[in-house]
Amino acid sequence: MKLASLKEGGRDGTLVVVSRDLSRGVRVPQIAATLQQAIEDWDRAAPALAEVYAALTRGDEPRSFAIDPQQLASPLPRAFQFLDGSVYLHHMEKARKARGADMPPNYKTDPLMYQGLSDRFIGPRDPMVVPDESLGLDYEAELAVVVGDVPMGTSAAQASGHIKLLMLLNDFTLRTITRTELPKGFGFMQAKPTSSFSPVAVTPEELGAAWDGEKLDLPILSSINGQPMGRANTARDMFFTYRALIAHAARTRSLSAGTIIGAGAVSNLDPETGYACLAEKRADEELAAGRATTPWLRFGDRVRIEMLDAGGASIFGAIDNAVAKA
Amino acid sequence: MKLASLKEGGRDGTLVVVSRDLSRGVRVPQIAATLQQAIEDWDRAAPALAEVYAALTRGDEPRSFAIDPQQLASPLPRAFQFLDGSVYLHHMEKARKARGADMPPNYKTDPLMYQGLSDRFIGPRDPMVVPDESLGLDYEAELAVVVGDVPMGTSAAQASGHIKLLMLLNDFTLRTITRTELPKGFGFMQAKPTSSFSPVAVTPEELGAAWDGEKLDLPILSSINGQPMGRANTARDMFFTYRALIAHAARTRSLSAGTIIGAGAVSNLDPETGYACLAEKRADEELAAGRATTPWLRFGDRVRIEMLDAGGASIFGAIDNAVAKA
Repeated sequence: MKLASLKEGGRDGTLVVVSRDLSRGVRVPQIAATLQQAIEDWDRAAPALAEVYAALTRGDEPRSFAIDPQQLASPLPRAFQFLDGSVYLHHMEKARKARGADMPPNYKTDPLMYQGLSDRFIGPRDPMVVPDESLGLDYEAELAVVVGDVPMGTSAAQASGHIKLLMLLNDFTLRTITRTELPKGFGFMQAKPTSSFSPVAVTPEELGAAWDGEKLDLPILSSINGQPMGRANTARDMFFTYRALIAHAARTRSLSAGTIIGAGAVSNLDPETGYACLAEKRADEELAAGRATTPWLRFGDRVRIEMLDAGGASIFGAIDNAVAKA
Repeated sequence: MKLASLKEGGRDGTLVVVSRDLSRGVRVPQIAATLQQAIEDWDRAAPALAEVYAALTRGDEPRSFAIDPQQLASPLPRAFQFLDGSVYLHHMEKARKARGADMPPNYKTDPLMYQGLSDRFIGPRDPMVVPDESLGLDYEAELAVVVGDVPMGTSAAQASGHIKLLMLLNDFTLRTITRTELPKGFGFMQAKPTSSFSPVAVTPEELGAAWDGEKLDLPILSSINGQPMGRANTARDMFFTYRALIAHAARTRSLSAGTIIGAGAVSNLDPETGYACLAEKRADEELAAGRATTPWLRFGDRVRIEMLDAGGASIFGAIDNAVAKA
């Protein structure tokens, strides 16, 4: 099924079940007021939501209304936890080359992962507001999962069952700040200002055989101002999968329901697949011509991220944020 | 006034107003169900809560009951954001010496701060559960503030007015993991498993002249198994104050109501004030005798953190967690 949150009812929004073709939605206050509430009580809520989804899909839901993506917040408008990995080593190498940093020690045995900001995500069609173009705003096209309660010590083998939902993600990054912030060792603070997620979150069974319980075998499309940037496959060249990321995060603590786990900017070794962020494109330009010619994002630029199924239909809806001045 | 959360009513607990002497409490469902709800609507909620507090303090609140600290969760049992600084340079120097790391660049112009775990804090009297003693569990006695909504670009001069509450904090740290995790640059993931907060959060006016709008001129007491460890003054030797930390965090994003901001393990230059964590004590032992003799925390150890007013009364109540095996 597909779930979303309307920008109404408070900071957590209002849960809606959305039809497979993303055109219609229905409020479900009798099941859960918010997606956070539903995920905390998933065993009870999921079957009830699935019934509404089935009725909606067969056109048998009289309370349904036409979905306007502008009215949608991120599926979780805020979360108690957002953890983001960096599992595409090709991206890690290029991003580090671009800022003059070495690869971290143990990067092949120990997933790289940071505690991300989660107190307020922008909606899939909201403006991305930054104070200054000189901070080097970049996008990162990613796929993220949402887990239920994960006990401390959960193994990778046990982790797949905790994955309840998947979403696309634009993990906006201020590249100029990463150069001074990351050498301090304490992770991202000013350099990752906020993120946006796809209009809907989907359950794993919605993805069919493309989802194998730990990775999703489909390309993630990104474009800037309508110009295609890339279409890297999110399963390919993934050094650690989602289940490994969950196990890594849960080694010394439990993860509470509604925790979002990303895997970092998608990047394939095949250069034909293009880019899922500007940093890699700029790194390639520097390598080829001695200097980067593609600018960072500017006020007014639009970044679009989407994923299509085998039939060409949008699975998650499109993230489409315009950059705006604070 | 003083506010706390009972372990009832769900993951966010149930808001209670607590008497100045910490002995009595009263539920306030007519004002706000949870502390998170109150802080999101502070201008309306705070005066109503203050009326209850005044009635409770003069013994004129018939619905009040005796507070049992075991029944209390952390004042915010979970939060959408926890940011922790490291502003006592003396601690930063010793902690880094202990793990063989250099001081970060720009540490005197740019506050060191990380995005911390906030999806589930343990209560002030709950067990602190860790998988293994070999991970080097340490405590850090800290003071934290809770802010209302802070707009992006808020200056340090504007920041003080956003501070709504103060709490004590034990920021548990797995020192063995910091050695491999921090060099990766992405901050704390496994090394900061969860934190506990004092039984009550207090409003700034409760602190009188000791609070000047940016720092608190009182010692923070810590002990292990009843043995006093330290009594460093939280205002002294503070290189950046809370208002500077808020401005730093809000440079590229807004901070949402209920964001908790800590300032790191308290540490004074005066050696008579002792320690607010084991890492500094062990660093001193290594310097003096070539090796650390004080062990990290072991299963069964109890860590107590408290702050007394000029008259010797506990302001926040005591954090008192026993270490337990997962």
